[in-house]
Amino acid sequence: MDKGEIPEDANEHCPGPQAETAGKSESCAGCPNQQVCASGTAPKGPDPDLVAISERMATVKHKILVLSCKGGVGKSTFSAQLSFALAGMDHQVGLMDLDICGPSMPKMLGLEGQGIHKSNFGWQPVYVGDNLGVMSISFVFPESADEPAIWSGPRKTDLIKRFLKDVYWRDIDYLVVDTPPGTSDEHITISSCLAGIDGAIIVTTPQEVAMVDVRKGVNFCKRKGIDVLGVVENMSGLVQPLSDFKFTKQLGSSAVDVTEDMISCLRENAPPELRLDDVFVWSQVFDGSGGGAERMCEEMGVPFLGKVPLDPQLCRAAERGKSCFEGNKCSVSAPALKSIIEKVIASINIKEDLSPGGGEKK
Amino acid sequence: MDKGEIPEDANEHCPGPQAETAGKSESCAGCPNQQVCASGTAPKGPDPDLVAISERMATVKHKILVLSCKGGVGKSTFSAQLSFALAGMDHQVGLMDLDICGPSMPKMLGLEGQGIHKSNFGWQPVYVGDNLGVMSISFVFPESADEPAIWSGPRKTDLIKRFLKDVYWRDIDYLVVDTPPGTSDEHITISSCLAGIDGAIIVTTPQEVAMVDVRKGVNFCKRKGIDVLGVVENMSGLVQPLSDFKFTKQLGSSAVDVTEDMISCLRENAPPELRLDDVFVWSQVFDGSGGGAERMCEEMGVPFLGKVPLDPQLCRAAERGKSCFEGNKCSVSAPALKSIIEKVIASINIKEDLSPGGGEKK
Repeated sequence: MDKGEIPEDANEHCPGPQAETAGKSESCAGCPNQQVCASGTAPKGPDPDLVAISERMATVKHKILVLSCKGGVGKSTFSAQLSFALAGMDHQVGLMDLDICGPSMPKMLGLEGQGIHKSNFGWQPVYVGDNLGVMSISFVFPESADEPAIWSGPRKTDLIKRFLKDVYWRDIDYLVVDTPPGTSDEHITISSCLAGIDGAIIVTTPQEVAMVDVRKGVNFCKRKGIDVLGVVENMSGLVQPLSDFKFTKQLGSSAVDVTEDMISCLRENAPPELRLDDVFVWSQVFDGSGGGAERMCEEMGVPFLGKVPLDPQLCRAAERGKSCFEGNKCSVSAPALKSIIEKVIASINIKEDLSPGGGEKK
Repeated sequence: MDKGEIPEDANEHCPGPQAETAGKSESCAGCPNQQVCASGTAPKGPDPDLVAISERMATVKHKILVLSCKGGVGKSTFSAQLSFALAGMDHQVGLMDLDICGPSMPKMLGLEGQGIHKSNFGWQPVYVGDNLGVMSISFVFPESADEPAIWSGPRKTDLIKRFLKDVYWRDIDYLVVDTPPGTSDEHITISSCLAGIDGAIIVTTPQEVAMVDVRKGVNFCKRKGIDVLGVVENMSGLVQPLSDFKFTKQLGSSAVDVTEDMISCLRENAPPELRLDDVFVWSQVFDGSGGGAERMCEEMGVPFLGKVPLDPQLCRAAERGKSCFEGNKCSVSAPALKSIIEKVIASINIKEDLSPGGGEKK
């Protein structure tokens, strides 16, 4: 007997919504579909949204997920800069912000307070220049920037499905999908509804406590059949020009600023080959003594894309909604990011060449 | 006509599960209860779990939520150190980790690989010493540390309810509840199921992009009737001894280590009052030029608890599951954390004194 298609958000060991034990088996406890299954009113056949999404996505050439199970590792900053970089190469780019409860894309792209427009073609993304379109919950509710979206999982799923089937991206080369921390409704929805994902980039920081989450991210991709394009180690040591630092001396319980004394001592006495304006200061900040992302990638057999130092200039660019590749302001982080993005593009192109008939498209 | 109790996770403008338009009104779109409401099988009366939770929580004196809508701001590190501090003051302490998809409490308390035990009294927390009990999803599934919990909202809600009604905390003075980023199922569940929360501590970093999320956190508390005990600004500038830094000089495209030259130049030439071993180096790292958490607190009328510098020693203590208050290793961050924790305790005690009959308990 056909036990019905297992819903995307079902528990493990789901007996199937049409099974005799549907909604009543031990594995059904806590499943969002339990009541519906038990009542025998579970929907039959494939999710009709999938057809609409597949039609809408026909104009999107490449799809890249940006993941990290841990929050605050710079995932959104990376997604924003990846999108700026691709747009700077004259590609047509879309950026979809799946963080419903903590959207930061509008700020990071300088688009705060903007709203979407609806046309006959669908929801219009908000544009940076003419080739980078962005979609975020902030654009759907622009008037309530400080109000939390106290949304349960199914409600988030519903909005994400609308992003997937109702947004008119036009013909685009790359769709970058930025996800929130974790492996919950947003990740379940995007991995089950968006077909043909080129791969995922996993962003992390160097500490062991972050590595636990990276392993979960890699295993999430494996379970969902998504290629891991590679792992980025972000905030990999702080690098700043000497002139950006202050020096203090502890005097009892208060700190005295001795920056001027230190700098003038160095200026007067440093050997001529040590031009102070060329000196950078480095600190590890987050303990990477466990080997960091690079060793973890070796162990798990996924590509390591590179390290991006913790660069206050990059933080500032992100705060101001600017590309770090413009104006040479992020001299510490921009070259690292550029090299990583080139590897991502190369890896997508190689896969395209290897796919059946892929090489001919070019 | 009675329209039924509105479920905790209902959409805004919910018509009520027993209303004629239940599950059919416009505001029902995307609500997790839509199908159940439309089918007329919505449960009647109050949630029976609430009674069980209230009975279980009768032995818990104070309940503190640790929130931050943004991820990676050091919320879990703060929760862990708060719990260590309270336990160090000889209080009986419980720590509940609500991060189902990215639990970090076991690592931060040195309890990796441990599992819960079930007794006649309920699930036993895992203990650090004899007065700090911890509960986390990692202890429920200790064998799958690297496997992601690909769990939808309702399934997370189910586990959190079990944490609330099935864990045997014994008589405890403080229950610290660490939450994941966002304002979704975990936050909805804890705020609707746990009565008598003393208040929430909101942890953030100094940047504007984090302030957006803090405002959401404060507004979440207002909407849910939870007092904000205050806001902690974490990673508020990097402070480290001079000897922890490396100095480099850019030579073409590669960096040359000039640390020895710099340090020996300073040792030989610095004035005697500048003892190098007493010099600390400070960098802002995350841009707080918008005024950071302190200004935001003034604007929103909530207490500012203080700043904790980005201290690599604290990161290392967290990585190793250690208290930062032991062994004087975190000389930069521990005093700041201590002062914040004292304010939190004072604020809870004042409220207790002010509550009807509260002063008499002492």
